[in-house]
Amino acid sequence: MSAERWDSAVSRSDAPTAAGDARRYAPLPEPFVLERGGELRGGVVAYETWGRLNARRDNAVLLFTGLSPSAHAAASPEDPSEGWWERMVGPGKAIDTDRWFVVCVNSLGSPFGSSSPASIDPATGERWRLRFPEISIGDIATGGWWVLRHLGLARLAAVIGPSLGGMVVLAFVAKHPGVARSLVSISGSPGASPVAIALRSVQREAILRDPDWHGGQYAPDAPPRTGMRLARKLGTITYRSAAEWKDRFGRQRIARGGDQGIAPVREANAFAPEFQIEGYLEAQAEKFVRSFDANCYLYLSRAMDRFDLAPDEGERVRVLAHAGLESALVIGVESDFLFAIDEQEALAAALQAAGVATRFARLDSREGHDAFLVDIEGFDPPIRQFLAAL
Amino acid sequence: MSAERWDSAVSRSDAPTAAGDARRYAPLPEPFVLERGGELRGGVVAYETWGRLNARRDNAVLLFTGLSPSAHAAASPEDPSEGWWERMVGPGKAIDTDRWFVVCVNSLGSPFGSSSPASIDPATGERWRLRFPEISIGDIATGGWWVLRHLGLARLAAVIGPSLGGMVVLAFVAKHPGVARSLVSISGSPGASPVAIALRSVQREAILRDPDWHGGQYAPDAPPRTGMRLARKLGTITYRSAAEWKDRFGRQRIARGGDQGIAPVREANAFAPEFQIEGYLEAQAEKFVRSFDANCYLYLSRAMDRFDLAPDEGERVRVLAHAGLESALVIGVESDFLFAIDEQEALAAALQAAGVATRFARLDSREGHDAFLVDIEGFDPPIRQFLAAL
Repeated sequence: MSAERWDSAVSRSDAPTAAGDARRYAPLPEPFVLERGGELRGGVVAYETWGRLNARRDNAVLLFTGLSPSAHAAASPEDPSEGWWERMVGPGKAIDTDRWFVVCVNSLGSPFGSSSPASIDPATGERWRLRFPEISIGDIATGGWWVLRHLGLARLAAVIGPSLGGMVVLAFVAKHPGVARSLVSISGSPGASPVAIALRSVQREAILRDPDWHGGQYAPDAPPRTGMRLARKLGTITYRSAAEWKDRFGRQRIARGGDQGIAPVREANAFAPEFQIEGYLEAQAEKFVRSFDANCYLYLSRAMDRFDLAPDEGERVRVLAHAGLESALVIGVESDFLFAIDEQEALAAALQAAGVATRFARLDSREGHDAFLVDIEGFDPPIRQFLAAL
Repeated sequence: MSAERWDSAVSRSDAPTAAGDARRYAPLPEPFVLERGGELRGGVVAYETWGRLNARRDNAVLLFTGLSPSAHAAASPEDPSEGWWERMVGPGKAIDTDRWFVVCVNSLGSPFGSSSPASIDPATGERWRLRFPEISIGDIATGGWWVLRHLGLARLAAVIGPSLGGMVVLAFVAKHPGVARSLVSISGSPGASPVAIALRSVQREAILRDPDWHGGQYAPDAPPRTGMRLARKLGTITYRSAAEWKDRFGRQRIARGGDQGIAPVREANAFAPEFQIEGYLEAQAEKFVRSFDANCYLYLSRAMDRFDLAPDEGERVRVLAHAGLESALVIGVESDFLFAIDEQEALAAALQAAGVATRFARLDSREGHDAFLVDIEGFDPPIRQFLAAL
């Protein structure tokens, strides 16, 4: 991913803020009332776009992201740096910007331009931190809806989202029925599972109990590193799969003067990283500490736990039947530990039962939950075919 | 599990140390040289026994444990408290103490009586802490071998071990060929997988970076609680399965004045445990902080990472072919995330290729890695049948 810029000033102008920055900002209403009862004033949602809206205004596609990316899904003239879904979004690609006007939204609560615990409360000139109202997956969806309104778009050809975004698209069609003609949910979930809640709970606790978290009052250059490192290492483990790592790292040691076996001497630190897989986790963790904000992480993580499209199957079908969808694509990965394939299957079944023409793509990618970022060969065809048929 | 007593004084006598304590102690040689090059002086291995050795001295069964239990596998006249495998070990049970003389060993490095970082170095009168030599799975196996020697046992009908113990039994037959006639490896592994190494690496880091760890110099009543809690919560997640938790906890909230849905009001602490699965993790974590020692955890955890019976498949078969085994039972659980079923399958195949009459029991228990502690209905029959046929 390109360098992220959560420290840059948030402008409410609709022009990109700086050279190399393609973000635009849609204002939220005053106040923006959140699902859990809080209110946000001076709120904005950052977004980027690719392609052009056609004369009939019927070629818009809205893209929500996973937990950690920004709205920079792909390079553009304003920001030529590589985007988080560069191989999927662009001219001639599966999400073809020659045909579609693609809008990617930075989730409300994320530190990459949208209002979040890391952004400045205009009323005080201080960062919101924990005074930021609690957000839900539905609030993130509605943040995207305000971007559409800002752009004068009443209808979408499709709303697309992977991972956390795969939850957001469901909240979007439930809360704003009739806006999206079709939906693409990728490695998402119709309701957070207990094992995913458990993992996120441990990740949050690592941050909350890091003395450097300081009750959320850490300085931007002194974040709760240990907590963030642990959270991301654990995340990384659950984003990929055991089989991938077996092939990729096996039991290879980190090279140390050619020692590849069990050294018969005691090392300086018996618990220092010794296996290549440990070095890989280190790299992922350090990258995350540099690019993401701890308070934002806590908010988004908890919002995922609380997401449940409906409390039971019948109600789930009812909600989806009233969403105004013509068609849907659900993509799941068999090796996904975090958003298990049976959750994707249940979602596809509910859509079908709701009368939506649904395709369920069950992929055998070995990259687990993160496969949508890596296994483009697997993900390109179902997305390309689905969008081409719209 | 019953209350553990890692603070009690270690006696070298062979009589139980105290009322309600069934432990006996076998001395290690002076010095005990460890696989990674260190030396231990004044070392002991704690064990308990059930049943009686017969006149032919051919009915001994040696039992190694997982990471966290003591040698107290089952109740006995000396210690009537419930053991960690109470439903499996006893008169008429699958490991039938009417027939077998069962010896359960507390792993070297574990805090329940055997020499460990938490025990007293007789040379200094101080706890060993990080001066304790690095241990390997092979050293734990050899610790068990010295217990046999202490008891005057030259041969075993079977050596049995689950989880970490499932690794130890392999090291045992490799390092001490001809001692065990048969082997039972339960949810073990012939070589730690990268995903298991990754998980343990995160668990250790949580402890190592806890300021209360103090480089291993914490007081026994002021352990690195946060690190231990995080390590155990993560462990608990990987010991069970997503499917079990879905049925058992689902998305149920912790009862708070009857609030079972999304409350429209902001709670005092938005990140406090809210789901029942989080309460379950809390209980597991607190129990572990009270019962286990952090330095011991670090040593045993790293020893598991480093275990590899042999660097390749051919060598693995060669080692097993020279172990003197007549028969073997390998039990694996399909929902085991930590010691995956394909590792069990590979072990069974290697034993078979080594000319050992091998039975592979593939269980569909939904309790994951911990199933051997819980799903006695599933585990009793294969173990009972295997031992009955010896």
